Amino acid sequence: MSAPAQPPVRITLGQRSYDILIGSGLLDDPSAWQGLPASADALIVSNTTVAPRYAQRLANQLERQHGRVLQLALPDGEQYKDWVHLNRVFDCLLGAACDRKTVLYALGGGVVGDMTGFAAACYMRGVPYVQVPTTLLAQVDSSVGGKTAVNHPLGKNMVGAFYQPLRVVCDLDLLSSLPPRELAAGLAEVIKYGPIADPALLAWLESHIDRLLARDPQALAHAVRRSCEIKAEVVGQDEREGGLRAILNFGHTFGHAIEAGLGFGAWLHGEAVACGMVIAAELSVRLGLAEPGLVPRLRNLLLRAGLPVQAPAWPLDKWLQLMQTDKKAEAGAIRYVLIDGLGRAVLRAAPEAEVGAAIRAHSA
Amino acid sequence: MSAPAQPPVRITLGQRSYDILIGSGLLDDPSAWQGLPASADALIVSNTTVAPRYAQRLANQLERQHGRVLQLALPDGEQYKDWVHLNRVFDCLLGAACDRKTVLYALGGGVVGDMTGFAAACYMRGVPYVQVPTTLLAQVDSSVGGKTAVNHPLGKNMVGAFYQPLRVVCDLDLLSSLPPRELAAGLAEVIKYGPIADPALLAWLESHIDRLLARDPQALAHAVRRSCEIKAEVVGQDEREGGLRAILNFGHTFGHAIEAGLGFGAWLHGEAVACGMVIAAELSVRLGLAEPGLVPRLRNLLLRAGLPVQAPAWPLDKWLQLMQTDKKAEAGAIRYVLIDGLGRAVLRAAPEAEVGAAIRAHSA
Repeated sequence: MSAPAQPPVRITLGQRSYDILIGSGLLDDPSAWQGLPASADALIVSNTTVAPRYAQRLANQLERQHGRVLQLALPDGEQYKDWVHLNRVFDCLLGAACDRKTVLYALGGGVVGDMTGFAAACYMRGVPYVQVPTTLLAQVDSSVGGKTAVNHPLGKNMVGAFYQPLRVVCDLDLLSSLPPRELAAGLAEVIKYGPIADPALLAWLESHIDRLLARDPQALAHAVRRSCEIKAEVVGQDEREGGLRAILNFGHTFGHAIEAGLGFGAWLHGEAVACGMVIAAELSVRLGLAEPGLVPRLRNLLLRAGLPVQAPAWPLDKWLQLMQTDKKAEAGAIRYVLIDGLGRAVLRAAPEAEVGAAIRAHSA
Repeated sequence: MSAPAQPPVRITLGQRSYDILIGSGLLDDPSAWQGLPASADALIVSNTTVAPRYAQRLANQLERQHGRVLQLALPDGEQYKDWVHLNRVFDCLLGAACDRKTVLYALGGGVVGDMTGFAAACYMRGVPYVQVPTTLLAQVDSSVGGKTAVNHPLGKNMVGAFYQPLRVVCDLDLLSSLPPRELAAGLAEVIKYGPIADPALLAWLESHIDRLLARDPQALAHAVRRSCEIKAEVVGQDEREGGLRAILNFGHTFGHAIEAGLGFGAWLHGEAVACGMVIAAELSVRLGLAEPGLVPRLRNLLLRAGLPVQAPAWPLDKWLQLMQTDKKAEAGAIRYVLIDGLGRAVLRAAPEAEVGAAIRAHSA
């Protein structure tokens, strides 16, 4: 049974405002693609896993409004989210003499979305783009809010732009083909919204985690919608991460360190974030901000979702060095997103001894 | 004798407004650097020609307001304006763990300014930067208005961003060390402002070209100031080149084709623009937009400035292919900036036969 049609979630950013469409069957529904610019050219950027399954179906829809619909499939994986592969998008666009009205469509997960968005931000100094997220993680987090980037060997997402899409189209049906590991990684970002913003969502997740893992369409629809609503509210208040928006990075400072330290692609982003959230929750408790019950509660939910909760056993120096380049760091001081009472997050520095203790409590 | 101090030229773009300071001795004048953010880190990006001469003097000023002033010298030349060398800026910033309050200073000509501005636009999704142009071309054109980019093998400035600096500091004394060929290349962009916007400037240039070539400080001060005033007015009305701003590209469609066709760096940008302006003027006359006298008048002034006015003898197909990727092209149609009566420019397509005839009249 598919989820009923719902009104879009609106991201309110003045002239850069846009809608997130959430529903079943949107990929093949002409109304989901209406109202986008009818430019001469469009380029669908996808990856070698997703493209064979969905790219032609999207192209069929887009041919109604574009004279030419090009397709490009990048290799699949976080380890390819770099300059070299970003340049393939430019090679493709310039090789086909695409002009600056060309619309890019990001059909894939977070890597495809981040790279396509950044390519759109830079190509001829900016062309429009649309997010068509095919993973749960991308639907609930990375496709929304206009953060685009590629990785650098010294840090994740270090080179990028704030650049908003024209629209985000979340077709819940696409989640049916998602490997279980990818589904779990997406659930990590859904779970994230509970501690930082919505205790009711956390409780709902505890009672619906099995239905989500079974891909119950109505449960998925609620999880995607509520996640997008929370993200829309935060991004609408702080598009360029002047302050509030940093709370969406709960678990990410430790998570990015795990990803960079193990080499991009070894753990999925959501897996690293899951583990990072446990450490960040532990640190919040140690600093007297959160109730001790938060750690086992979060850890248990993540375990039920099939996510890792034990970090690599590295010396503290290695952790600190990996986190030093985090974008939230300022004047050499690493800043952490911490839970300040359930449903509220703050950004602040922390004593190294407490950071070390929090890591040790959750690594092996 | 140095030019007297003048009030700044203001670029009015709401929250992104900024001043262009123009004068002698500004590099060593503390007041030119006051009011910029006092962040922990600063990075001076320069090139191997300019850095030995001026970078330490700039660093001496900046050490007043930054804890650490890093320096990076890129190789000198348009052929290095690419991803590979842009990444050196990120390597430097990340290697030194620079945070997202770091201020970049672009100390050099157009290449350094474009690359540093684009690096600032992308590093951690955006850090502030200041333009310190050391060539006439950069002072009168490329440092002003926030166009940043790198080249792609298939086209010039194809990957970039609109990203405004915090301030532009034009020290006229720096022009004294400029090689004559670079001075002439800068004059091409000064001359450009006459036909597109200011007949009086064109007449003034005709009577002052010898003094400019002799680097008379008062003549240079007037040329820089008037150029910046015209550019400020255009950019203030059309920051992202929705329409009007394209007129600043007079001569550039043909010029970019020359640069790309000969290989970046063979001709200086200003040299290619000079030659491109003669062809564009010829095309304007052929289409009945401009008086026939414009072509010899412009050609004569450019020759007196020591600039090339004869393009390479390529078949028309090669020209059209090189111009096809121009950013002003739309749906496959190349659009040209044409003079529509002296002091006024328009953007429009043109019949291939006329384009070919205009090129043939000025190539050998």
